Amino acid sequence: MGYKVPAGISNKHVHVSKEDFEVLFGKDFEMTNFKDLSQPGQFATDQKVDIIGPRGTLANIRILGPYRPQTQVELSETDCYTIGIPIDVRESGKLAGTPGCTLKGPNGSVELKEGVMVALRHVHLSGPQAEEAGVKDGDIVKVKFDGPRGITFDNVLIRAGEKHYRDMHLDTDEANAAGLTNGQEGEIIK
Amino acid sequence: MGYKVPAGISNKHVHVSKEDFEVLFGKDFEMTNFKDLSQPGQFATDQKVDIIGPRGTLANIRILGPYRPQTQVELSETDCYTIGIPIDVRESGKLAGTPGCTLKGPNGSVELKEGVMVALRHVHLSGPQAEEAGVKDGDIVKVKFDGPRGITFDNVLIRAGEKHYRDMHLDTDEANAAGLTNGQEGEIIK
Repeated sequence: MGYKVPAGISNKHVHVSKEDFEVLFGKDFEMTNFKDLSQPGQFATDQKVDIIGPRGTLANIRILGPYRPQTQVELSETDCYTIGIPIDVRESGKLAGTPGCTLKGPNGSVELKEGVMVALRHVHLSGPQAEEAGVKDGDIVKVKFDGPRGITFDNVLIRAGEKHYRDMHLDTDEANAAGLTNGQEGEIIK
Repeated sequence: MGYKVPAGISNKHVHVSKEDFEVLFGKDFEMTNFKDLSQPGQFATDQKVDIIGPRGTLANIRILGPYRPQTQVELSETDCYTIGIPIDVRESGKLAGTPGCTLKGPNGSVELKEGVMVALRHVHLSGPQAEEAGVKDGDIVKVKFDGPRGITFDNVLIRAGEKHYRDMHLDTDEANAAGLTNGQEGEIIK
């Protein structure tokens, strides 16, 4: 049996830079913690924005904290089709050359020249968890989920270290295709 | 190497009974062929309806022909979440116990007591194609698609016989999760 990881399903969301947040919500406005997330230090905020593409708008999309150096919008391929943004699947944080969009908050709008991506599915593991699973940061593995819509995901990136904790991040297309709910366990296959 | 099948991506659509079609479009209205589909005798029509659930509406959804004995609405899980309809993954035509919805056409509305499903992914093959692939009607296989979002789909139903022709039917969640476009080939794994 392979090492088990729970599914952590990411709906569309936005990471923001402090500068962009101030434009969207106002200069003295602070982001507020709605809920801690599975990864250490990460949290969902109470703040939401509209994501506007050439073909439509995704309304009331949650911002995640803390601030990042550059604003990053994570959509599913289905979301990209809905608002007419090219699909660019890649690793979080690697934003050069990604498509842009408009973000609209209660105080103002930001025109992003880049920053919209479909996040590459990945497994977070702490150092000891990675050791137990027999994998290391940067490895590519398969993860198998059973069930009526059972799927084995190929090309799953391992992200391991002290800022990580056991969770497999999938988007809503991937979770729905496999009929998954949050916490359902899959098995790492090397 | 396993037998190759092209991906045929099904967006949400509606099959209708003649009785329901007359309520939606009027007594003397005939469905018109917009485009033939991959399966013999099946076609997309020019006619569209709204699908209404407790939480929202999916507007302008295409009707497929020919008529069927009972109206059947095929949605992705993402669509089900959008309009608030319970998810029921099953084989086409087996409608007993599925959730209902409202359909709205230019002439009138139909309240369906049942008929909404997420279609079980499946591979269509003609008799000779099934023989070549070494499978038979009713078999359950895996189908593997390569690529950056490569996926192996488990529990894929084989539907084989003279009314079928080589095509793997997936919904938009499944296609988007695997980053597929129409016609991209996967491989049957037994």
